[in-house]
Amino acid sequence: MAIVLSDNQYGKAETRVVRIYRDTERHEIRDLKVSTALRGDFAAAHLSGDQANVLPTDSQKNTCYAYAKERGVGEIEDYALALAGHFVADIGPVTRAHVDVDEYRWERVSVAGTGQAHTFVRTGHEVRTTSVTTVEAGAVGESWVISGLRDLIVLKSTGSSFTGFLKDRYTTLAEATDRILATSLTARWRYAGTDVAWGEAFSQVRRILLEQFAVVESNALQQTLWEMGSAVLKARDDIAEIRLSAPNKHHFIVDLAPFGLDNPGEVFHADDRPYGLIQCAVRRDGAPDAGPAWDAPAAFA
Amino acid sequence: MAIVLSDNQYGKAETRVVRIYRDTERHEIRDLKVSTALRGDFAAAHLSGDQANVLPTDSQKNTCYAYAKERGVGEIEDYALALAGHFVADIGPVTRAHVDVDEYRWERVSVAGTGQAHTFVRTGHEVRTTSVTTVEAGAVGESWVISGLRDLIVLKSTGSSFTGFLKDRYTTLAEATDRILATSLTARWRYAGTDVAWGEAFSQVRRILLEQFAVVESNALQQTLWEMGSAVLKARDDIAEIRLSAPNKHHFIVDLAPFGLDNPGEVFHADDRPYGLIQCAVRRDGAPDAGPAWDAPAAFA
Amino acid sequence: MAIVLSDNQYGKAETRVVRIYRDTERHEIRDLKVSTALRGDFAAAHLSGDQANVLPTDSQKNTCYAYAKERGVGEIEDYALALAGHFVADIGPVTRAHVDVDEYRWERVSVAGTGQAHTFVRTGHEVRTTSVTTVEAGAVGESWVISGLRDLIVLKSTGSSFTGFLKDRYTTLAEATDRILATSLTARWRYAGTDVAWGEAFSQVRRILLEQFAVVESNALQQTLWEMGSAVLKARDDIAEIRLSAPNKHHFIVDLAPFGLDNPGEVFHADDRPYGLIQCAVRRDGAPDAGPAWDAPAAFA
Amino acid sequence: MAIVLSDNQYGKAETRVVRIYRDTERHEIRDLKVSTALRGDFAAAHLSGDQANVLPTDSQKNTCYAYAKERGVGEIEDYALALAGHFVADIGPVTRAHVDVDEYRWERVSVAGTGQAHTFVRTGHEVRTTSVTTVEAGAVGESWVISGLRDLIVLKSTGSSFTGFLKDRYTTLAEATDRILATSLTARWRYAGTDVAWGEAFSQVRRILLEQFAVVESNALQQTLWEMGSAVLKARDDIAEIRLSAPNKHHFIVDLAPFGLDNPGEVFHADDRPYGLIQCAVRRDGAPDAGPAWDAPAAFA
Repeated sequence: MAIVLSDNQYGKAETRVVRIYRDTERHEIRDLKVSTALRGDFAAAHLSGDQANVLPTDSQKNTCYAYAKERGVGEIEDYALALAGHFVADIGPVTRAHVDVDEYRWERVSVAGTGQAHTFVRTGHEVRTTSVTTVEAGAVGESWVISGLRDLIVLKSTGSSFTGFLKDRYTTLAEATDRILATSLTARWRYAGTDVAWGEAFSQVRRILLEQFAVVESNALQQTLWEMGSAVLKARDDIAEIRLSAPNKHHFIVDLAPFGLDNPGEVFHADDRPYGLIQCAVRRDGAPDAGPAWDAPAAFA
Repeated sequence: MAIVLSDNQYGKAETRVVRIYRDTERHEIRDLKVSTALRGDFAAAHLSGDQANVLPTDSQKNTCYAYAKERGVGEIEDYALALAGHFVADIGPVTRAHVDVDEYRWERVSVAGTGQAHTFVRTGHEVRTTSVTTVEAGAVGESWVISGLRDLIVLKSTGSSFTGFLKDRYTTLAEATDRILATSLTARWRYAGTDVAWGEAFSQVRRILLEQFAVVESNALQQTLWEMGSAVLKARDDIAEIRLSAPNKHHFIVDLAPFGLDNPGEVFHADDRPYGLIQCAVRRDGAPDAGPAWDAPAAFA
Repeated sequence: MAIVLSDNQYGKAETRVVRIYRDTERHEIRDLKVSTALRGDFAAAHLSGDQANVLPTDSQKNTCYAYAKERGVGEIEDYALALAGHFVADIGPVTRAHVDVDEYRWERVSVAGTGQAHTFVRTGHEVRTTSVTTVEAGAVGESWVISGLRDLIVLKSTGSSFTGFLKDRYTTLAEATDRILATSLTARWRYAGTDVAWGEAFSQVRRILLEQFAVVESNALQQTLWEMGSAVLKARDDIAEIRLSAPNKHHFIVDLAPFGLDNPGEVFHADDRPYGLIQCAVRRDGAPDAGPAWDAPAAFA
Repeated sequence: MAIVLSDNQYGKAETRVVRIYRDTERHEIRDLKVSTALRGDFAAAHLSGDQANVLPTDSQKNTCYAYAKERGVGEIEDYALALAGHFVADIGPVTRAHVDVDEYRWERVSVAGTGQAHTFVRTGHEVRTTSVTTVEAGAVGESWVISGLRDLIVLKSTGSSFTGFLKDRYTTLAEATDRILATSLTARWRYAGTDVAWGEAFSQVRRILLEQFAVVESNALQQTLWEMGSAVLKARDDIAEIRLSAPNKHHFIVDLAPFGLDNPGEVFHADDRPYGLIQCAVRRDGAPDAGPAWDAPAAFA
């Protein structure tokens, strides 16, 4: 049986683009990490070392910087669509491009109660993300847009239980009618199209995720994720699917009885590892196909 | 259009199991990180918060520890197969189980030239990995085994060039006829079956990967990866496919001319980001299907 | 010449204490990382392996949890003072105790515009810190309190230059009249006493640091740090000294000229390493002596 | 009371220098992380923003690269001495220089049983370190050399107990007559002079540390550290002092009794946090003074 080259892609990962808008005295900042991955007619590069079809990853990096000036950043989805579209349209051997963008959040430093014009402080662990895939399709290409967030760390100190679960020979866990529920949420949602007010949509989805986490009386993280995901899809017809990944960051109640103290849900040990990992996808029946949208650069990791 | 639950899985991630074999005075150590992920009939947990089908992730953790005693660790592939098989066979609602194991390497501390009986020192950044998937299929289940390694950091100080590449408007990179080639390799290979001498196979694949990296006169990392992958498949009929992911860890030659010094490939700046990321798969034509083998716990990340 | 035991200390590092206040429906959360280090009569533990004087680090951990209930957390300075005072007063062999506390910030999740009663979201990279040292001194001990913050990431997009510097044989840097200035600030200030409104003081210092970073027209990071530090000391008589450590997180302007684009301070590459590291202390002449205050657990690292 | 500038220093941190020796076909690699910190007459830079005395950190970085060519790397202690001596001797305002170097270890990739001429694989977590301090003193300066290692992860599966310790109200720990002892060792030793065969000395100290960890029947980590440190000082008259910092990386025995299994020291949970942190210094009575040797760049952290 012959040995053959199968899936392959290459690109420049983690280009750190900072774009300052200084058209007025009141500057704006956009702080991005951009990764590109190209697929196409690259067999010769592998099989014979012939690089004639290979656009250097260094050129891809240059393009990320140049587009931040030529096109501007705008919403990260627009910026990623422009880059992915360019690689597919303008670089002959490329038939598919993935562009991932992370955006770090800044807010203005307040001076005497007012946001200063050109000084910023990083806010939040949380990162806004997008993954855009464009494939060659006639003149303009066809694109899929996934938006998301990660490292959104949330905790509720009550309103969470875990009871009535399956017990096997290895089960020692006690049922819990009132526990801390905490996670560092990753959410990624796929839009049905590309004609979206990205920034407004992001804010709305983020708000819904937080609100649902807060208001759902949780029998398990599974239930909370479902409620979060389905609320997002109910609120926005233009979202086809959402995937949620939530480590259950365990907070173990500390036994203070040896010290003559009770502990009615007040003192906890926040543990690092292991952690539960709960993941689910919620989709709209009959939504447009995902195509290669989820085959992000991470596909080979 | 209805909103429906789609793919979902859950498990315990990063359980740190250390197993000491002390049957003789000469102890052995096995040091593992184990992650489990289960799929099956878990819709009720999401939709109505009913946990009756949900085996706690805490029980999955307990099982990892108990199996380290009951079954022993052996090769990590055997240990993962035992765990995955157990979840599918013995836990009613489970129809598919993924078990990922990382193994950290230790060697004996040498005292007066001899390896001491019970003292060990961690060796290498590199991690040996396995990802086992078992699905319900009649009495025993059907299994896929992926083995691998990651964080294998290698560098060659000559024997690498990058020339003749595609140039576009954004290309400024100079051609290089002699450069440093360095990467932190992740390799994962899928076996055609489960009747394999895992430890011996791992050692052979690792040796081939290193040797090919060394001996291939590289026109690009793509070519090196292809040669590494195809050499592995040539050497072992029982491997169906191999995936390689290689960040191109750039070493930029430092311009010493301003200081009146030449620099013929001697002094380099090792850069962190961005980096090229080159990924490819090499497979055997007509090999057995991968099924869900690559749908590891990371699928939702 | 005899070989002798010199400085030594031991303790429990990175105990993760989460304290929920649930006295009313509106919960409060305090999220801490606590490290203890004890000094005293511990020579025998080293020299002969006699542990009779050694309070286990496990007991120190238990004490951190128990005090979170018995005494409550309050401001982290008070909590650390209580712990350090306890170790010196109540554990015979202990003559000096260091307690370090990091506090992670949370804010309420907003639901329909109102902060929810028991759901929180982590906010900011930034960590509030304290390092308390208590030494045996008569009945009650003598204490020093250092408060601080770290990982406060700030950036100004103009108002920073670097010109007129010393040039040697190895200097190639061009003068910059307008550059990005960015850092991830660590600040630690020592109070002259222990009768301080800790929370209010922390907020005031943080505000001053941010404002000074914003308003100082900077000729160099050194100047900015001095202005930040001296402004803090001017504002609060009860602060004896402040130390500032500021990595100069370089943002390099990208040369877009090869692509026919100008770049008037708009597109930057945010580099990881190397970075400048600028550090200074500002103190009040004649302030009380620091004693062992700065000999934090890190002293041996 | 006047507000005054106190201690201050600045430099370039984490310059990643890779030096290839290619004088013969059989290349050598030296892989370093270099940090410099300068003290001296830099008050004006702080107080008035006058940079006339400030050698840019960029120039310091350039010097690290240039010296790797001009002088070569040799042993890292020699390289650091050359750099520190240069800054003090040749840069007018500098009165003290610290240079820290980390060295990453590589070994040759074996091809057909022989080490290949120009291909290397990173070996070990462990890092070899040096911290050199040079102060202005007459024509040549006076220097102190600290050498060390960090991230040396060692474990013994028996030969360690912890009994007879002090018990207080918060003690719940059971005595252990046979436990796992594991740590990630940081060791730093100060030489009495600078006329040392650095490489040979490093190898000897490393060997002694490992051997003592192995052979000492440990009543506590304190005892093990003392035995390690004093053995080093006994073996080498040219070492004045050694500091050891050892996190007690807890391995908790897993209770398998609920599953009908005994666990005689075989299955452990390797925990992340909290950890004990045991630190001690061993010195030679009457050894030369340490001066500012330990005031490394970390002094302000």
